Amino acid sequence: MGSMPTQFDPPSGTRDFLAAEVERREHAFSVIRAVFGQYGFEPLQTPAFERLDVLLGKYGEDADKLVFKILRRGEHEASGEADLALRYDHTVPLARVAAAHGSQLPSPYKRYALGPVWRAERPGKDRYREFVQCDLDTLGSASPLADAEVLCAHHDALAGLGIGEFRILLNSRRVLSGLLEVFKVPDELGPGVLITLDKLDKLAPDAVVTELTGRGLAQDTSAELVRAMTAADAVDRIRSALKPSEEGAAGLDQVDTVLSLVAPQLPDGRIAFTPRLVRGLSYYTGPIWEVVAPGVAGSLGGGGRYDHLIEQLGGPDVPATGTSLGIERVLSLLGGGEEGQARLDVAVTVMSEDFAARSFGLAAAARAAGLRASVYLGSSGKLGRQLRWASDQGARWCLIYGSAEQEAGTVTVRDLRSGEQTAVAVTGVGEYLARVAAAGDVPPGGQG
Amino acid sequence: MGSMPTQFDPPSGTRDFLAAEVERREHAFSVIRAVFGQYGFEPLQTPAFERLDVLLGKYGEDADKLVFKILRRGEHEASGEADLALRYDHTVPLARVAAAHGSQLPSPYKRYALGPVWRAERPGKDRYREFVQCDLDTLGSASPLADAEVLCAHHDALAGLGIGEFRILLNSRRVLSGLLEVFKVPDELGPGVLITLDKLDKLAPDAVVTELTGRGLAQDTSAELVRAMTAADAVDRIRSALKPSEEGAAGLDQVDTVLSLVAPQLPDGRIAFTPRLVRGLSYYTGPIWEVVAPGVAGSLGGGGRYDHLIEQLGGPDVPATGTSLGIERVLSLLGGGEEGQARLDVAVTVMSEDFAARSFGLAAAARAAGLRASVYLGSSGKLGRQLRWASDQGARWCLIYGSAEQEAGTVTVRDLRSGEQTAVAVTGVGEYLARVAAAGDVPPGGQG
Repeated sequence: MGSMPTQFDPPSGTRDFLAAEVERREHAFSVIRAVFGQYGFEPLQTPAFERLDVLLGKYGEDADKLVFKILRRGEHEASGEADLALRYDHTVPLARVAAAHGSQLPSPYKRYALGPVWRAERPGKDRYREFVQCDLDTLGSASPLADAEVLCAHHDALAGLGIGEFRILLNSRRVLSGLLEVFKVPDELGPGVLITLDKLDKLAPDAVVTELTGRGLAQDTSAELVRAMTAADAVDRIRSALKPSEEGAAGLDQVDTVLSLVAPQLPDGRIAFTPRLVRGLSYYTGPIWEVVAPGVAGSLGGGGRYDHLIEQLGGPDVPATGTSLGIERVLSLLGGGEEGQARLDVAVTVMSEDFAARSFGLAAAARAAGLRASVYLGSSGKLGRQLRWASDQGARWCLIYGSAEQEAGTVTVRDLRSGEQTAVAVTGVGEYLARVAAAGDVPPGGQG
Repeated sequence: MGSMPTQFDPPSGTRDFLAAEVERREHAFSVIRAVFGQYGFEPLQTPAFERLDVLLGKYGEDADKLVFKILRRGEHEASGEADLALRYDHTVPLARVAAAHGSQLPSPYKRYALGPVWRAERPGKDRYREFVQCDLDTLGSASPLADAEVLCAHHDALAGLGIGEFRILLNSRRVLSGLLEVFKVPDELGPGVLITLDKLDKLAPDAVVTELTGRGLAQDTSAELVRAMTAADAVDRIRSALKPSEEGAAGLDQVDTVLSLVAPQLPDGRIAFTPRLVRGLSYYTGPIWEVVAPGVAGSLGGGGRYDHLIEQLGGPDVPATGTSLGIERVLSLLGGGEEGQARLDVAVTVMSEDFAARSFGLAAAARAAGLRASVYLGSSGKLGRQLRWASDQGARWCLIYGSAEQEAGTVTVRDLRSGEQTAVAVTGVGEYLARVAAAGDVPPGGQG
């Protein structure tokens, strides 16, 4: 915290994850995988890098600039040319896999991808160059049930992670097209107008009007549009305004169908039709959604239907829908890892070289009893020093074996919580530990 | 198999892992993590790439050539220079982490790293450019108990994975130094002689003698050395030959100490002193080992003590020992993934749009009962088609809800194994499924 970067830090925008952090992250990932699995989604893992031509030109110039390119090797290295690049997201690899393995894949293909992607962004708070993306997509179904399903799975994953308060904003690209139509926004201004409207959650209505007129939209249209979107009864107003437009009505129908499927599964008020929601990316073709939480800048992810993107990315022509969990943001919401977690259940002293083999065997017996156990690996022969080590490991029991124990044929089992010591026959120590662990709160396998 | 590569294949030397393969691999990884955790080892995750200066020049020119370099970005991109590179192994990052986070790390620091590394090798059968490396290391302990511990954990991981037959070859670098000394091998020939001796498992003794003399070793010394190493009583001969050498005796002592700790924990004959074992890498300083299996070319991993390497790699000056599981080879030994695994426990039909919300809710109820469940996402309204889909998913039950069921307020639960159908009240279907699943062989959570 606050210390100067050193030559030993990981590269700018990347992180080393020590044990507590790895465990916190992996726990969250396993919750998410379990939820997705419950919906019948299956995992897909693709390589860290793709051929450069597979990656470039798929998301426009701005994205291309963020791609980490890998230098050609061997004699070509001197050319300074690249032929591979680190994956920028999980969607381009998905399109490639759909093209490569199409016939082997179930139809529809419901898959999740949970793994790192790399972008050469300027690093900042919560902005990394290596970060985990968590995508859930269904390829090959045009049904709104597929939209509703990925959305519900996204919801259940957040709920499963213990994110208490969050809301899902729902809209449809066709609602937005209908809006542009009924407010008579000139076609060429459409995309820009939508980008500006999407700022209604951050900017004051007046500022949005100013930005709209700056884009060339007539003053009265701009004002009318913003008024309709920000009124107390905005949703009703937009609903009636859209009715005359075939596109708008179709969009409303999509929204209502998804609502009718999803809302009954969720807590009241968790999902709402939100006409201003745009989702920046232009490839969406149907329902779109975004998950927001109070006090959290940005979203906890979102998604929508994108029926032509897979083909545009080089894959087959299939309808598709998907959602992306903002997993790094979710992880930071979940708070810090628990430091000082126990590494061991049973710590075994090594009182002298002569007893090393015995101690080593005692640790093996404890492991065979399902507990985490290890011998002391330091050089001190002092019991006090070794007991301190045992307690630093968070061990519940310390096994002591020295001359006295050797003579008696026993091990001293010290309960580090109570300080109580029990002499246990060497041959019975595994059984003894299994019994006291089962009686106490140390679960079998030691996965506490 | 045997098909021509297409533009949709992953880059040369990399693989797409579809569901069955992901599950097979992740299952193996979780077994390994559990074993390592039982020994009190903790996970460490470092970024996929490191700064180029951290990686280069650490393992010699040959390794440097295999490093995937990442192009500088922005205005520097045109220079064709690289400033980052994909990690080549887990050891250089470990040295960097030990330097960066030293004070936060427990002492000794017992960590495992399980994740991909990248090497620009010429791809071939079982040789990849992206592959998983699985390393287990203890930093900060000079005790042979630390060597024995990583070795036992390596063993237990292989045993836990179900690798039945394998053997551990054990030696010490100091035994090898002693050998060179007692056979009066000139210092400058030492490293080359060891490299040739290591081929005694592949080449005929005569061929090894020829290679030794080719390296400049006297004919009689070469013959004598090979005879001692290949005799029926080779181990005894080497043991007596080493006694006059201080270094050799110290090496034997290391071997015997590790044997005394490890052998009692393992099945008989699993570990043996193997004087010819060299382990190519020159950085080892003490005990070394390698795991081999009958019929498997190459090893299932190996390791040893490397007391100065962490410092050479830019880390602190700490004694260290570690082992590396040849996890890709182990995975290929374990055989193919099970295709056609069930994706769902419960498949829910959608007989018409009108019933979609009800079907969606039924799937949610099945999931709430701990089962994997999903609705039909296709466009056919035909029951036969949907039942075929259900059985393709490997589902055990299919829930059918149509006009008849709507009238009766029930759901038809069809057992796809027996073909039996049961009418269950809509509100009771979750409870019903939980009960039949518990009675049958579908475990809670559906993780079958």
